[in-house]
Amino acid sequence: MTTSKNLYGVILAGGAGTRFWPLSREMTPKQLLRVFGTESLIWQTIKRILPLIQQDQVCVVSNSKLTEEIRTHLITEKEPFDKVGYLIEPEARNTAPAIGLAAAYLSSVNPDAVMAVLPSDHLIQNPDEFLAVLKHAEKVAEAGYLVTLGLKPNRPETGFGYIKLGSSIDKLGNSYVSYMVDRFVEKPNKETAVSYLESGDYFWNSGMFVFKASTILDEIEHLMPGLHAVLTRFKDISPDEWSSERADQIFSEAEPVSIDYGIMEKSDKVAVIPVDLDWNDVGSLVAIGDFLARDERGNTTAGNIIDIESENSIIYGENRLVATLGLEDMIVIDTHDATLICPKDRAQDVRKIVDILKAKNADEYLVHRTMYRPWGSYTLLEHGPGFKIKIIEVKPGARLSLQMHHHRSEHWVVISGTATVTRGEEVFNVHVNESTFIPPSTVHRLENPGIIPLKIIEVQNGEYLEEDDIIRTEDDYARR
Amino acid sequence: MTTSKNLYGVILAGGAGTRFWPLSREMTPKQLLRVFGTESLIWQTIKRILPLIQQDQVCVVSNSKLTEEIRTHLITEKEPFDKVGYLIEPEARNTAPAIGLAAAYLSSVNPDAVMAVLPSDHLIQNPDEFLAVLKHAEKVAEAGYLVTLGLKPNRPETGFGYIKLGSSIDKLGNSYVSYMVDRFVEKPNKETAVSYLESGDYFWNSGMFVFKASTILDEIEHLMPGLHAVLTRFKDISPDEWSSERADQIFSEAEPVSIDYGIMEKSDKVAVIPVDLDWNDVGSLVAIGDFLARDERGNTTAGNIIDIESENSIIYGENRLVATLGLEDMIVIDTHDATLICPKDRAQDVRKIVDILKAKNADEYLVHRTMYRPWGSYTLLEHGPGFKIKIIEVKPGARLSLQMHHHRSEHWVVISGTATVTRGEEVFNVHVNESTFIPPSTVHRLENPGIIPLKIIEVQNGEYLEEDDIIRTEDDYARR
Repeated sequence: MTTSKNLYGVILAGGAGTRFWPLSREMTPKQLLRVFGTESLIWQTIKRILPLIQQDQVCVVSNSKLTEEIRTHLITEKEPFDKVGYLIEPEARNTAPAIGLAAAYLSSVNPDAVMAVLPSDHLIQNPDEFLAVLKHAEKVAEAGYLVTLGLKPNRPETGFGYIKLGSSIDKLGNSYVSYMVDRFVEKPNKETAVSYLESGDYFWNSGMFVFKASTILDEIEHLMPGLHAVLTRFKDISPDEWSSERADQIFSEAEPVSIDYGIMEKSDKVAVIPVDLDWNDVGSLVAIGDFLARDERGNTTAGNIIDIESENSIIYGENRLVATLGLEDMIVIDTHDATLICPKDRAQDVRKIVDILKAKNADEYLVHRTMYRPWGSYTLLEHGPGFKIKIIEVKPGARLSLQMHHHRSEHWVVISGTATVTRGEEVFNVHVNESTFIPPSTVHRLENPGIIPLKIIEVQNGEYLEEDDIIRTEDDYARR
Repeated sequence: MTTSKNLYGVILAGGAGTRFWPLSREMTPKQLLRVFGTESLIWQTIKRILPLIQQDQVCVVSNSKLTEEIRTHLITEKEPFDKVGYLIEPEARNTAPAIGLAAAYLSSVNPDAVMAVLPSDHLIQNPDEFLAVLKHAEKVAEAGYLVTLGLKPNRPETGFGYIKLGSSIDKLGNSYVSYMVDRFVEKPNKETAVSYLESGDYFWNSGMFVFKASTILDEIEHLMPGLHAVLTRFKDISPDEWSSERADQIFSEAEPVSIDYGIMEKSDKVAVIPVDLDWNDVGSLVAIGDFLARDERGNTTAGNIIDIESENSIIYGENRLVATLGLEDMIVIDTHDATLICPKDRAQDVRKIVDILKAKNADEYLVHRTMYRPWGSYTLLEHGPGFKIKIIEVKPGARLSLQMHHHRSEHWVVISGTATVTRGEEVFNVHVNESTFIPPSTVHRLENPGIIPLKIIEVQNGEYLEEDDIIRTEDDYARR
């Protein structure tokens, strides 16, 4: 398969994935989680399309906070993607404005651009089939259609919207047949879902679309003139400035609606290609049980688990021991700082817990303990009044920025590897089992000069211990 | 109420409390837990009898490992008990040998000794009633009876043994009436338990006994001659030597049976005093729901909990966030290093998890993260290959032993208070936000010279980090 000259991948990655808490957090939403195999869902999403789309024609659309995390994530995976582009939405305003922005940008770069709009947090287990249909969809899109992929249902699912097929579009005859859309339907009740499954005319609305940038812009002009006006005003703002205050203000005028509601359900140019994909929307924690192996009693367990006689449950532990006894159809997610327990059939309500945490300003549970950085990672082990303890891992040859903190001292104990420490004017090595400390207001840098990872325990203390007490003087990764 | 000259409290405290894991651990069994109010069950047990029994006539019977923990616990509570005596069983061999040993010892101290044998891990909410019946029981015991307290049942409980009343013992007429025992019966089925409750003749076997030391020794001679022979050989071994190898060997010949089975069910000297006490045997984690307040949906929660729509559940968190959603009749116990989840009706099987942990040699989950010491406490925060991190709290004016470790270095960061550190020949102060370190094989001591608690973060590293790598040169608390 060769890559297509005009095909662009537009990866929607702004989702907060609150239904995956406490696995997912604000800065580590579902698409960045690694629990579904060895790589994250967003990495898999990009990897999957590379046979057809050049890496530098993939752009990730997300918000300003998350984009930096996604970039770090994608360039630090074992197979790093460093040519991927990023489009930063000024603020999250649902899919129509986000796709509109991407379309405006891509059409300015390439008037013939065809966009494959793909969620970053779904799983597709048969990538070859997916690529074949995508290749076909590009042709249908080039003929002026807004193509949506309709997935063949294998169960009477009440959690998805459906698309009813209309007449077939014969002129594009191929191994795939495209159809006009008769109608989009909302999530049905069980009885209706069963009749849809039996009829064979209804397909799941996958949220995957393929269209020419110019086609969708025309339809936006026609069906969402307000959004079109906003996009027009973006013409003289380069993507680098999309997170500026000015861009923010313009974008906030865009009506926050989905592309389905705003365009697809109303346009007469919509085509659907029915396809049978081994696809999963990873819609709730229950999905973990769909991908990971089950034991003979139907349990999916990962981590340090002791179970006695539980059935059909998902039991996930990060590093502590989780002991379960006689559970049925339950979900247990035990992370470093928070544990979630609920019956499987309440998994959709996990977002309510996140809502409560937000309302309580319990921010500590909305971020993850381990943060990945270009130079390695740090993990918060413990915090209390006046202190924070982290374990910091620095990759061989990597170094942190030259930095300074006004409100804390840092004490470093090397537990593996060798550290080269810059402290004011001094530069010295600290070996395993040795320690040093950095007084407040002292410029310092931590570096791993060796060939094995450097691990240090850092004890911070002082009156103010937040991450924003940092002044970076020099940084290998151009961070501010 | 004045204390009685000849009355001794014999507190049985050898129980491992495995059904309370992960709250209870080997070195912190149920009787030492503080979850049932502000003080531990053993502290409450002793406090309860002090109006009637002098503190120096209370002796705690336990094993050698646990006795040190109990002693530390009792002398460090807010109202410390420092006159209590300790009898160390050479090994745990059920209640008959333990009570026999205590009887042999007490009769040698005071030939008229009357023993009130009490479990250390039960809860009695009306202490005045309890003291009144104990006072009466002493008189009945002095008349030569083996007295057992029969508790008035308030439900058809199938988890306890019952005692059927025989003829009354009129001659000791009092506000309490004593009865001969018709028979002891095993745990009944539900139907039988209902008939027992209706008949009014059956009382719960409480495991609380009052008898003269000489009476029980006579009955042991008569009914358990093997045990009597063992006790006779203990006559020339002082309690200080009960944990010697010799004592161990003799004691191992005692048949490991309960006092109920060995004596009470067979002796014709047994009397029962029926009493209505607000008593709870704290037999499983379900008991937590009996003591702590319940919310309007019947939940008992303690700690940092967010719950949505759970019912009749017990949700206990130590310091991490526990989020629950739609639970019914469940128990969730979330501790620093282990989490337990099970339905309430499986609470009795929690000991099976402890059995699995023992079989796996997963010792780390059988001990507690925080250990209390006479000088303060330490808490294991984190451990990994080559390192351990503890938070150490030293009481004002207290100090640890002068000690040395061969296999580890220790790095100390003061996060609160001031430390006086002895390191080899040096003695110096370390203030808040400062740190120091102790190289391997260096004699050192940590002391809090101040008037507020000293808190330090200790990072240990080295190839061997177990607690037994310690050589104590000098210790304020006479520990080896």
